[in-house]
Amino acid sequence: MNCRKCGKKAVINMRQHKLGLCEQHFLDWIPQQTQRFIEKYGMFTNDDRILVAVSGGKDSLSLWDVLARLGYHADGLYINLGIDDGAHYSSKSQRIAEDFAEANKLHLQVVAIESLEGFTIPEASRRTLRGQGRPCSVCGLTKRHVLNRVAREQNYDVLVTGHNLDDEAAVLFGNTINWATGYLTRQSPLLEAKSGLVRKAKPFFRFYERETAAYALLRGIEYIYEECPHATGATSLYYKELLNTMENRRPGAKLSFLLSFLQAKESGFLADGDSDDSRELRTCQSCGQPTTAPDTCTYCRMWEQIRSRQPRTIEGRHT
Amino acid sequence: MNCRKCGKKAVINMRQHKLGLCEQHFLDWIPQQTQRFIEKYGMFTNDDRILVAVSGGKDSLSLWDVLARLGYHADGLYINLGIDDGAHYSSKSQRIAEDFAEANKLHLQVVAIESLEGFTIPEASRRTLRGQGRPCSVCGLTKRHVLNRVAREQNYDVLVTGHNLDDEAAVLFGNTINWATGYLTRQSPLLEAKSGLVRKAKPFFRFYERETAAYALLRGIEYIYEECPHATGATSLYYKELLNTMENRRPGAKLSFLLSFLQAKESGFLADGDSDDSRELRTCQSCGQPTTAPDTCTYCRMWEQIRSRQPRTIEGRHT
Repeated sequence: MNCRKCGKKAVINMRQHKLGLCEQHFLDWIPQQTQRFIEKYGMFTNDDRILVAVSGGKDSLSLWDVLARLGYHADGLYINLGIDDGAHYSSKSQRIAEDFAEANKLHLQVVAIESLEGFTIPEASRRTLRGQGRPCSVCGLTKRHVLNRVAREQNYDVLVTGHNLDDEAAVLFGNTINWATGYLTRQSPLLEAKSGLVRKAKPFFRFYERETAAYALLRGIEYIYEECPHATGATSLYYKELLNTMENRRPGAKLSFLLSFLQAKESGFLADGDSDDSRELRTCQSCGQPTTAPDTCTYCRMWEQIRSRQPRTIEGRHT
Repeated sequence: MNCRKCGKKAVINMRQHKLGLCEQHFLDWIPQQTQRFIEKYGMFTNDDRILVAVSGGKDSLSLWDVLARLGYHADGLYINLGIDDGAHYSSKSQRIAEDFAEANKLHLQVVAIESLEGFTIPEASRRTLRGQGRPCSVCGLTKRHVLNRVAREQNYDVLVTGHNLDDEAAVLFGNTINWATGYLTRQSPLLEAKSGLVRKAKPFFRFYERETAAYALLRGIEYIYEECPHATGATSLYYKELLNTMENRRPGAKLSFLLSFLQAKESGFLADGDSDDSRELRTCQSCGQPTTAPDTCTYCRMWEQIRSRQPRTIEGRHT
């Protein structure tokens, strides 16, 4: 297969677009498409101050790289979760993120959850029933809270994340299989700012994971290859496998699943009934962040509880 | 595993209900549950004249058997599609349906498509572009038309089909993956009568395929084991496989997928925008059946075209 633009040997074949590209044209294509998505979905402009959630993985580093190449004012925020039992996942990914920022003269801010709240995510998980012994729920809630808090306190206009099509399709699949109406209503590449919640955008949401991985590889971006050690067996990974078998059978299946969903939503097919958006937001009496709870937000209540409890022993752990 | 009702050895374990039953209690449970579904969804009453679409397969024969046991006034309609190249699918299933009716003293009516329209389904498929060489689309349209026409002309109150949970979940899966909003709005265990369309109900829609198969087996009902020879490679079978892997991972996954969808719809989550229901129905100038087309219905137009064309040669077939 040859490059559609120049006829040289293609390095990547994107079957869903029937598009092969050589290295150079692929490295141009990704920013061009990103720019197209940013404009099409009205995500942000050159005047906006952008905060990129940087994990050290291929998606967030590629996104930061692309936004910088496109001339956007994009700073990074790395959250150290303290996942260092065994594989040194957090310390390694922090080092990678810092090296990337330094080499590209970009501004990276680091927040360590242990310094902020007194415990790492794995420690916190052992002190709460939330997530039933798995740290993913504690981790997700904490990241969402910290990202919004930092973006808001430092007056960023928009918070961007590196979620790719495989991520988005897997989340959509889970929400659809359970007809989780509230989540379905909220799933979008762009969530507008609202009562203390900063605008959120996902400029990479139409790229397949293999495309962002190819971009990082061809741009020579060092990233952390490992999945988070706690992700093993996660339902989202199972959904990704299922979607991969569908994609193999019909190239473009994932993309058309997500786009037809967005189109159905756009056409008014999904009612806005019991979504989070329709619920009134109040101000947390403890941290000042927006919350649907009557006084203290879920984040503050969870960490208050974590600090007041002893860790569960091995025998006491939930199975 | 033992029967929950009497403690004897169970013949079936329904993992999604954590319910094991012995032969006798399973053979009681199926009609009891069917009666519960009929009432819960307001499908029909003892006063209604019911027409059962009988294919000769396990689902429709079991359904007819159950409705008769429950004391409903249920006649059968068998449509001979003329699928007899090779496996004698149609002639075999007709003989099975007739034997069942005779043995149970039930009234069965037979309509042969070849007598009605001049060609069998496989012949017709070779004379139209519809379905792109596969007969499934011609067949589906024809069956829906004939079932409604017979039910309407003979004043039946309701048309019932043997669709089971596996069928319904696979259709829902396909409609969801493509966000086919019109089909999603219409998918229901009960469609009320409307402008010449007879009421339609699926009393078995909450039974797994293995349950209807077990019922047929334990009741000693002879049925045609083979799938239609044209179903090979059908996308619906592929979706059934995918759903089976999900069911294996989480017993009850299919049931919860379908029920959460119905619940979301019931709660008003899906808008009624571009569904068939919202379109005005006219009367076909040729057959008098309801249609959304301006003059002649899709069925009449398709058969008119089929009768006017030569069959495609092997070389001319669509690939």
